[in-house]
Amino acid sequence: MTHELDIALVSDQIAMDYLQPAFRERFPKARLHRIDTEVQELDALDRIDTVVCWSPPPGLLARMPRLRLVQSVGAGTDHITRDPALPDVPVRRIVDPDMADGMNAYVAWAVVHGQRHMGAYLESQRRAAWEEAPIEPPGRHRVGIAGLGVLGQSAARALRAIGYRVRGWSRSPKGDLPEGIEAFHGDAARAEFLAGCDTLVCLLPLTDDTRGILDASLFAQLPRGARLVNAGRGAHLVQDDLLAALQSGQIASAVLDAFVEEPLPQGHPFWRHPRITVTPHIATRTRPEAIARQTHDNLARL
Amino acid sequence: MTHELDIALVSDQIAMDYLQPAFRERFPKARLHRIDTEVQELDALDRIDTVVCWSPPPGLLARMPRLRLVQSVGAGTDHITRDPALPDVPVRRIVDPDMADGMNAYVAWAVVHGQRHMGAYLESQRRAAWEEAPIEPPGRHRVGIAGLGVLGQSAARALRAIGYRVRGWSRSPKGDLPEGIEAFHGDAARAEFLAGCDTLVCLLPLTDDTRGILDASLFAQLPRGARLVNAGRGAHLVQDDLLAALQSGQIASAVLDAFVEEPLPQGHPFWRHPRITVTPHIATRTRPEAIARQTHDNLARL
Ligand SMILES: NC(=O)c1ccc[n+]([C@@H]2O[C@H](COP(=O)([O-])OP(=O)(O)OC[C@H]3O[C@@H](n4cnc5c(N)ncnc54)[C@H](OP(=O)(O)O)[C@@H]3O)[C@@H](O)[C@H]2O)c1
Ligand SMILES: NC(=O)c1ccc[n+]([C@@H]2O[C@H](COP(=O)([O-])OP(=O)(O)OC[C@H]3O[C@@H](n4cnc5c(N)ncnc54)[C@H](OP(=O)(O)O)[C@@H]3O)[C@@H](O)[C@H]2O)c1
Repeated sequence: MTHELDIALVSDQIAMDYLQPAFRERFPKARLHRIDTEVQELDALDRIDTVVCWSPPPGLLARMPRLRLVQSVGAGTDHITRDPALPDVPVRRIVDPDMADGMNAYVAWAVVHGQRHMGAYLESQRRAAWEEAPIEPPGRHRVGIAGLGVLGQSAARALRAIGYRVRGWSRSPKGDLPEGIEAFHGDAARAEFLAGCDTLVCLLPLTDDTRGILDASLFAQLPRGARLVNAGRGAHLVQDDLLAALQSGQIASAVLDAFVEEPLPQGHPFWRHPRITVTPHIATRTRPEAIARQTHDNLARL
Repeated sequence: MTHELDIALVSDQIAMDYLQPAFRERFPKARLHRIDTEVQELDALDRIDTVVCWSPPPGLLARMPRLRLVQSVGAGTDHITRDPALPDVPVRRIVDPDMADGMNAYVAWAVVHGQRHMGAYLESQRRAAWEEAPIEPPGRHRVGIAGLGVLGQSAARALRAIGYRVRGWSRSPKGDLPEGIEAFHGDAARAEFLAGCDTLVCLLPLTDDTRGILDASLFAQLPRGARLVNAGRGAHLVQDDLLAALQSGQIASAVLDAFVEEPLPQGHPFWRHPRITVTPHIATRTRPEAIARQTHDNLARL
């Protein structure tokens, strides 16, 4: 089954070379191709039978006549299905229990980083200055999670275990939330949810309803001086509105993992903003070995 | 009861002025005095009836003839009882459920900071550089907690909820640990415990047995490239041994909140070490209002 395969690692947002060792090991007889942020050309389009991808350039897959599997490297597939020219080929997601744990770790770090002034301590260290900031216990800080899906519910549980007061917001009502997590749902409850978020964590999927949801009108509904964590998608955030809200003090600080343009361009104002923390879309990701194994299994099932 | 009180806020390690507003509010008729890292003299020793303290200078309390309560601002009292001249006066600790949650938040941040290379991302941001580091899920990382007391058990639970593999070490066996936390106890199990700590978190109390426990011989028992978090006491750590272990690569990075000398002196090599994170003893602390209230209640009970 691993004979005669031509597998392309494809992304217009990230470098895909991190997958090569695991795919070489799992598919020793396959030819591996790459088209991503570092390798711009793929001269064997008519040979490719398998695409393993994160955000493939729209139109590219339609130019692969032998394509029989489109494997997402994540749980989501909207970065694939948004392509209006997507050929009629099976699209598969990765199922990965480690994924939620990775996000838990990121969100815990990001929430504590803001709430407990850890960024200020790191700055003080650069000046060898022993400077204390106020120490508020987690039980006096309300964290709101927008999006109570696989990742949001898991992060909510982890934040509760630390001791934060946690609330969440979803489209539909959630009956089975762990104890101590306050649930809100739908547009009617949005304002009430937001009014109680000292830190807001975005773990929404990107849809027509959620594109640009982190905008001036939303920020205005948060308590003054709230903190923002965006671990969803870059297009959830209206960038200029965030800069204005930081300027006015409505938002105290932001930790951002996802951006409209990735890699975030060199000259982008987020890089140099003293109250924005930028991480390079690393909140969570499936291990290359697991992606190669599941791609293998999905091919076998075809 | 609040008449005629002379309350001294005392420390040879921290500035105690953070307590003044809460004590003024709770004891409006008391006289407040201070002797700490900022105020060096207290000229009313013979009037003081109540001392509220963190690490009072040895010998000082013996010079207060009217003293009737020594109130620690923390859960521990060893920073008081180590004074060989301590007068025979009631010593009281603070009971504070928020304390453990504050430590949970600190430990979660510190563990993720190392394991997920967050410090490297912050450095990259200074250069506007989009640089990914390896993303290992928490389930592949073993965190060991030395000291499974009030704070250690609570931190263990929070780290489990994130998804880390957690083990703990105590003096006596622990029967009632939450599911999924591997327990070790006593000196006989020390090596086995340490061999499975990708990150070691110190939450031990400072005793004759634990002074200098974080030394070269302990570091050598950890897996190569392990990470260290010291949220216990400064004297747990043999400073030069840590610098050597970082140099050799035996220890990959350290997050330190407590130091033998606090504030950490300007010229100390920890400040400028690229793989040491220094925080100014802020992992957790009881809110001033709670300290003032419990001091009030303890005085009433005398
Ligand atoms: N930064 C990273 O490294 C990284 C990695 C992986 C994923 N992510 C992001 O995380 C997001 C969430 O992933 P997931 O697996 O948890 O998704 P999911 O299971 O599909 O959950 C999405 C949640 O959002 C809620 N939601 C959707 N539209 C909404 C709306 N208009 N109003 C209110 N709530 C709405 C859903 O509500 P219902 O439950 O009522 O449907 C659901 O609770 C992904 O879409 C992706 O953007 C980021
Ligand atoms: N950085 C900060 O802001 C901050 C704030 C508060 C506290 N702390 C530190 O946190 C420490 C722990 O506080 P806690 O309230 O959790 O203390 P605790 O309840 O007294 O627990 C101490 C734990 O350490 C274990 N232990 C003591 N000696 C040992 C030895 N020789 N070998 C193995 N295990 C040993 C004890 O074992 P047994 O259970 O078997 O007795 C117990 O599990 C404090 O002492 C203080 O240093 C730091």
